[in-house]
Amino acid sequence: MYRSHNCGELRVSDVNKEVTLSGWVQRIKDRGILNWVVIRDRYGITQLLFDEERTPKELLEASKKLGREFVIQVKGTVIERESKTKNMATGDIEVLVSELQILNEAQTPPFTIEDETDGGEDLRMKYRYLDIRRNPVKDNLIFRHKVTMEVRKYLSDQSFIEVETPYLIKSTPEGARDFIVPSRMNEGQFYALPQSPQTFKQLLMVGGMDKYFQIVKCFRDEDLRADRQPEFTQIDCEMAFVEQEDVLNVFEGLTRHLLKEINGVEVGEFPRITYDEAMKKYGNDKPDIRFGMEFGELNDVARNKDFKIFNEAELVVGIAVPGAASYTRKEIDKLIDWVKRPQVGAMGMVYVKCNEDGTYKSSVDKFYDQEDLASWAKVTGANAGDLICVLSGPTNKVRAQLSALRMELAERQGLRKADEFAPLWVVDFPLLEWDEETERYHAMHHPFTSPKPGQIELLATQPGDVKANAYDLVLNGNEIGGGSIRIHDKQTQALMFDYLGFSPEEAKAQFGFLMDAFQYGAPPHGGIAFGLDRLVAILGGQETIRDFIAFPKNNSGRDVMIDAPADIDNEQLNELNIALKN
Amino acid sequence: MYRSHNCGELRVSDVNKEVTLSGWVQRIKDRGILNWVVIRDRYGITQLLFDEERTPKELLEASKKLGREFVIQVKGTVIERESKTKNMATGDIEVLVSELQILNEAQTPPFTIEDETDGGEDLRMKYRYLDIRRNPVKDNLIFRHKVTMEVRKYLSDQSFIEVETPYLIKSTPEGARDFIVPSRMNEGQFYALPQSPQTFKQLLMVGGMDKYFQIVKCFRDEDLRADRQPEFTQIDCEMAFVEQEDVLNVFEGLTRHLLKEINGVEVGEFPRITYDEAMKKYGNDKPDIRFGMEFGELNDVARNKDFKIFNEAELVVGIAVPGAASYTRKEIDKLIDWVKRPQVGAMGMVYVKCNEDGTYKSSVDKFYDQEDLASWAKVTGANAGDLICVLSGPTNKVRAQLSALRMELAERQGLRKADEFAPLWVVDFPLLEWDEETERYHAMHHPFTSPKPGQIELLATQPGDVKANAYDLVLNGNEIGGGSIRIHDKQTQALMFDYLGFSPEEAKAQFGFLMDAFQYGAPPHGGIAFGLDRLVAILGGQETIRDFIAFPKNNSGRDVMIDAPADIDNEQLNELNIALKN
Repeated sequence: MYRSHNCGELRVSDVNKEVTLSGWVQRIKDRGILNWVVIRDRYGITQLLFDEERTPKELLEASKKLGREFVIQVKGTVIERESKTKNMATGDIEVLVSELQILNEAQTPPFTIEDETDGGEDLRMKYRYLDIRRNPVKDNLIFRHKVTMEVRKYLSDQSFIEVETPYLIKSTPEGARDFIVPSRMNEGQFYALPQSPQTFKQLLMVGGMDKYFQIVKCFRDEDLRADRQPEFTQIDCEMAFVEQEDVLNVFEGLTRHLLKEINGVEVGEFPRITYDEAMKKYGNDKPDIRFGMEFGELNDVARNKDFKIFNEAELVVGIAVPGAASYTRKEIDKLIDWVKRPQVGAMGMVYVKCNEDGTYKSSVDKFYDQEDLASWAKVTGANAGDLICVLSGPTNKVRAQLSALRMELAERQGLRKADEFAPLWVVDFPLLEWDEETERYHAMHHPFTSPKPGQIELLATQPGDVKANAYDLVLNGNEIGGGSIRIHDKQTQALMFDYLGFSPEEAKAQFGFLMDAFQYGAPPHGGIAFGLDRLVAILGGQETIRDFIAFPKNNSGRDVMIDAPADIDNEQLNELNIALKN
Repeated sequence: MYRSHNCGELRVSDVNKEVTLSGWVQRIKDRGILNWVVIRDRYGITQLLFDEERTPKELLEASKKLGREFVIQVKGTVIERESKTKNMATGDIEVLVSELQILNEAQTPPFTIEDETDGGEDLRMKYRYLDIRRNPVKDNLIFRHKVTMEVRKYLSDQSFIEVETPYLIKSTPEGARDFIVPSRMNEGQFYALPQSPQTFKQLLMVGGMDKYFQIVKCFRDEDLRADRQPEFTQIDCEMAFVEQEDVLNVFEGLTRHLLKEINGVEVGEFPRITYDEAMKKYGNDKPDIRFGMEFGELNDVARNKDFKIFNEAELVVGIAVPGAASYTRKEIDKLIDWVKRPQVGAMGMVYVKCNEDGTYKSSVDKFYDQEDLASWAKVTGANAGDLICVLSGPTNKVRAQLSALRMELAERQGLRKADEFAPLWVVDFPLLEWDEETERYHAMHHPFTSPKPGQIELLATQPGDVKANAYDLVLNGNEIGGGSIRIHDKQTQALMFDYLGFSPEEAKAQFGFLMDAFQYGAPPHGGIAFGLDRLVAILGGQETIRDFIAFPKNNSGRDVMIDAPADIDNEQLNELNIALKN
């Protein structure tokens, strides 16, 4: 038996017990006739004492030869510490060692195994197994486990059944790029890895499973933006005989449950806003509503003077930044530079300082008097001490720009608090979105999303106006879930495929099995999928999903620890009947 | 709202309630002025009543136009049935319908949606979504969900953390054939899908995660034997600072928990036998011990007469088949034909009938007298009424043959009872097994398995005799789990790779990251993996794993429902820089 206790559990009540501990050497404090060694495992750290008076001299000497991260086993007696420390859970005791065994030696690790390490990102990824020894990473993985356990418990208690859907499926041209898998037994043919179990969960509804969920890996071969992974995890859910309201209620319940059980936070009913309203108020379909700073549209009050830029703009829109009237000229200049960066793309920014004395000082005082500026303050909801930032231009562009500015300023003003949670539903998404590149409409959510009742006829004339039974769950400015009520009859599904540019043959080849299934009695159904990696990161009060994945890949899709992907033998390629082209 | 209740929950206590139900039309019993329609969902069936006296005539007429598997919604009043039936949970009531809405029509399904269907395997696979509507399949999927929930609960309560390991990893030549995934971003390189998360779970142990588990898909591109799937699910587990005894205790606990919670069966301490003993007693390393029929080796008592076949055989071995003395001559002849089939491969079979009067009648009465046969009965443990079956030949071959015969006869005699559970541990597996094809030893478990203490030196001289710290959990004649204590030091691991024929360069290229990791303080560790598909099937008292997989593949690795694998566009291949060879 390697241990009687773990390294996190001994207390004063254990004094005088004979114990066996195993773990890694965290620290060595050599004081000549004394040597303290701190031993670590997943559960905590415990101080070991070797002292000349009470332990054999050889043992004391041996303890001094230990190195950081050696794996050791010790036997000894729990004693009360002379100088207790509250910094560690076992801080009231130490173990006077009587036997020491080195289970494995260790080279000096390439970075320190401490909460604040000296290791850079690259090094930590290469030696991820060492990084995982560090509390912040280890705790994140344990946190993730707790979240998935709660999700499963909650959904299972609500009669959801977790069903595993296949990983080796069929490639579809719709959506993102698939990873493909050559088949050896079916020469010249390929499987694809699922981008989501979308069609399978719909087939499970046709199959009468009624309530399905699955925590499942999904795959997208996309050029990786920061913090995107080629493989990611989804909480995938679907329900039969439901309307949008039913789905929203169940998953609002799940989210509330998680916030309570995991974060100890009680939240009320989730606000719901439409996509159009979200774009108008926040310039964004995933608004962070932990803070106000709602958009105030200033067209009516700002296009009545000689300021040509505003007069010619489609939209003049501003936000009031709490407490930012104190920004210096230099700070504001920097802010203007910030909005002009290509990533934001504004032409410039007009600002109004709302002074504490009730007066206004703006960058456009030449054109607007105090009364004008007061009306701007009214529209943006600015109070004394606030800074009003105003952008102008084509509606969609300027909204996106102001949204970026809103988030940046909220960050600067400390309004994006990690321990505050503000969930909301965004509903009534457009069914289609225009794709500049291909110059046609694409399904905004996916081609199985149903249009709002009575709107399908609009497809022919005003496709951009058709709203979908689609919804997103947004938490702290992140889309954590998205879903829709699906089309469940063959005719509508065929119409959608037709509209999206699939020929009947293509539709049949790609989705024939789903359309076939719809002929045999498909129930009304809908669902949602959560991005687990992001959900966990946000619940954990952090931004980077990579920190919540045990073995993440880098931005080139490489696992630098195992050095994958890699070359493979020609023999393997031959068996698969494929060859490299170059 | 589509329903106020599901189709399985209404009882007499609900009489007079106004209810809304949705579901599929299971049956229509048209009696002219009455029409009964049985409606079905996941939760059960409910009888709907349309009658001329109490429902509008149009409604009665409309109900007669419904077809099987139509999806309908009805509103109505719960009434007590005149003729109650105990065959259905809702058999005391029916719903007098006041409103009927057809939510979706249905073509006549290609097979009946009944517990006993008229659909053959192929048709059921093609329309798997319809097959899932049938209770036997649906119940299996729900059963699987219950098992995985219990597994997660039990392991989580024991401080195991579920950690997701990557699916896009690196191909290794060891073991079975990998499925590979071409990388677009890393041109000319390939990921592989994991055959198991073996190295990752070991790295998690190096990373101090201490107790890990994961219910995870694994992939093997092997020619599929019956009831093997190219993708399958494992309960994968690993623990640090453990000896074999610790691992066995934890997973014996898990298995006992499942048998109790899922099957309501209490089992005592699991027997443990060594691999050598299992082979000697059952001719098999996964013996079914629900019944006796242990091998009796007859060399000492059967090679002392003139029967040349036995005298020249390496091993003469028999089993006593309870109650089979009553087999007719014809039945025994058929049995002899059975053992001579190429799949079994015996040259012949000697038998002894143990008559009720204490005498014996054998097929070798010419050579053996009653006293001889009595000693055979003693060795095989045969009683009056039993049939002793004796095979002879080279030890390993004859054991395998008699094992097959033992299982066949147990089946025929009704001794393999689906609701009886007899788990056991098989321990002390050989470290290596001889491969006839490549004419060298391979790792029997995998190359990370540790040899028994002090035995590694035998590798050079008696490799076949080296025993491993490896164990299998066997349930009712099936290996449901297997694992080992791993090698945790770099030197031993290097030695193993060397012995298995890896050059240091190959070992480094394939497993360098693991051997590197071992330099930084690897703890002693070990684990186990359960085949979930098989485990669930056995707990469910069934044989075929396919019946417990929502969307299984056929023996050619095809999903005949979605028709995968499939051809893909050349464009997609070009992007990946690969081409088909022919």
